[in-house]
Amino acid sequence: MNSNSSLCGINRRALLSGLAMLPALPGLPFSAMAQTQTGVSLGSWNEGPAKQAIFDFVRATTDEGSSKFVPLQERIATFDQDGTLWVEHPIYSQVVYCLDRVPALAETDPKLKDVEPFKTVLSGNREAIAKLSLHDLEKIFFATLSGMSVDDFEAEVKKWLASAKDGRWKRPYTELIYQPMLEVMQYLRTNGFKTYIVTGGGQDFVRVYSERVYGIPPEQVVGSAEGTKYGYQKDGTPFLTKEPKLLLNDDNAGKPEGIHLMIGRRPRAAFGNSDGDRQMLEYTGTGDGARLMMLVMHDDAQREYAYGPAQGLPETKVGTFSQSLYDEAKKKNWTVISMKNDWKRVFAFD
Amino acid sequence: MNSNSSLCGINRRALLSGLAMLPALPGLPFSAMAQTQTGVSLGSWNEGPAKQAIFDFVRATTDEGSSKFVPLQERIATFDQDGTLWVEHPIYSQVVYCLDRVPALAETDPKLKDVEPFKTVLSGNREAIAKLSLHDLEKIFFATLSGMSVDDFEAEVKKWLASAKDGRWKRPYTELIYQPMLEVMQYLRTNGFKTYIVTGGGQDFVRVYSERVYGIPPEQVVGSAEGTKYGYQKDGTPFLTKEPKLLLNDDNAGKPEGIHLMIGRRPRAAFGNSDGDRQMLEYTGTGDGARLMMLVMHDDAQREYAYGPAQGLPETKVGTFSQSLYDEAKKKNWTVISMKNDWKRVFAFD
Repeated sequence: MNSNSSLCGINRRALLSGLAMLPALPGLPFSAMAQTQTGVSLGSWNEGPAKQAIFDFVRATTDEGSSKFVPLQERIATFDQDGTLWVEHPIYSQVVYCLDRVPALAETDPKLKDVEPFKTVLSGNREAIAKLSLHDLEKIFFATLSGMSVDDFEAEVKKWLASAKDGRWKRPYTELIYQPMLEVMQYLRTNGFKTYIVTGGGQDFVRVYSERVYGIPPEQVVGSAEGTKYGYQKDGTPFLTKEPKLLLNDDNAGKPEGIHLMIGRRPRAAFGNSDGDRQMLEYTGTGDGARLMMLVMHDDAQREYAYGPAQGLPETKVGTFSQSLYDEAKKKNWTVISMKNDWKRVFAFD
Repeated sequence: MNSNSSLCGINRRALLSGLAMLPALPGLPFSAMAQTQTGVSLGSWNEGPAKQAIFDFVRATTDEGSSKFVPLQERIATFDQDGTLWVEHPIYSQVVYCLDRVPALAETDPKLKDVEPFKTVLSGNREAIAKLSLHDLEKIFFATLSGMSVDDFEAEVKKWLASAKDGRWKRPYTELIYQPMLEVMQYLRTNGFKTYIVTGGGQDFVRVYSERVYGIPPEQVVGSAEGTKYGYQKDGTPFLTKEPKLLLNDDNAGKPEGIHLMIGRRPRAAFGNSDGDRQMLEYTGTGDGARLMMLVMHDDAQREYAYGPAQGLPETKVGTFSQSLYDEAKKKNWTVISMKNDWKRVFAFD
């Protein structure tokens, strides 16, 4: 639906920047996910304009006496995932998944061992992997994200999530969720909002863990999506196969396009952290009445990461928060969340 | 996602069969919609196996003591629209909309008056219109369903719904809703099921009235869908334009494919009335535990229509219910609803 500058929301530069820091992946068992979505009202937020903006928005939209009251059915809030709900540095978790899947793929189809780009990935030579072309990466994404039944894909992702760990925190990726954002989602839901994830990442990938991790059911996950093909097993049992065909590239302009396709309503609130979320926030902000647009700024190298050229932070290839986005946010009164100043803690395990 | 045998779920044969019976469209004001979804438990159903199947299914899936209990979040029920929730004879309402839009289109772009197929449609010669090729019809569909902003499209459909009337009942199309099906949807919702429309018709078209008419919000309407394109007006305001590009052909195999894309869960219950619903019912029926698959059979020429070769009813081009579908239903214990025997009344105004 938009340009093909990225595949499943993952562009090549973003991939390259993280490869050098890829963690080893010990096969440790999955430890229990933090369950902290109960009854907390922004307890992990410091007092300040960001917390206040959330409270003000909810108060205005849920007070029947307010001129900004929003009927229950129109209360839609959308959240980007990578960098907004969980850690995206040094590399998107889904890219790690795709690379991790290559050995199993070559096991099933040994001739891949001598075919590029699989040969390079299997070599483990990160410098060589980092030099793969976008076309090569597409081959890896499609080979690891399609060509199997949707049930098999779900099982593979579950298995991976149970063992893969982030290199810095030595924890499953699904524990690297921002506690303050879990609280915002819960707070909005308590006030009648339907919360959606709108991610450049793979829709089927995120749906595997969205309910358990974010409390967001699969039908409220909008993401980059491949087509599927209906067919029958030999015994007549029908099943769906994931096809190597991108139906929705849910990043940049693809986000409002995906929102229209999958939700059909303009959101009242939207949360992002990078240039890929710009159009979603613009689209959200265009409607009448009360609107809440927020951008997470990663300015906390100690507790998480500091990146993005806005306010002089180091430039980076994953989750670019450009100066022009920052300027647009200021001009349009979008709220920039300072991870460093606005968040009392970052993770549930902090 | 599947073959291009139909466009937006509307195939040429279906169109042709209905053209001869196209109603005149007086500009009468829209009268209030029947609002009957409150507190009724299948009151418009006669006692019998169909009503019993619904009760049994709901009892089994909502009783925590039952081995067939289904957790709340997995309670998904999908409903075809044309012929399952509202009248589809003699012609799909959305096709009437497309043809009705041609004069306004020619008003805006006068050169269309001399260009086929628009010239033929403007002639009002139904025999000639009935002979238009599929390619011609595609031109009409894309011209009338795309090339405008999503907001303008919604406004046009609303305007049309407020004045267009069915030729037999002289009522707005949105009053030709099957009261027993409204009651099933309400009954399922009362028992924690999320109800979805899964239609071969246009997703954006059905979303305009789904909440008002069926109590189903736009985000729970899955239908044939065109892509949209994000852009900016001169003053910088962003908007979405409907593009003449079919993303999802939500009929036949496209129904389970669309369900995976838009919902991401296998339904527990599915309702249809024609061969176009076969794969949705098969897919629904394949999962574990309690499942409910139902097919509305149009065998009531007096109160509605009688058509479909099953059980010797007249063959027809709209909503074909073939003998082979009937045989599959019997073999797999799907429930066939006899409109004549199972429904105490058909419409709210009966």
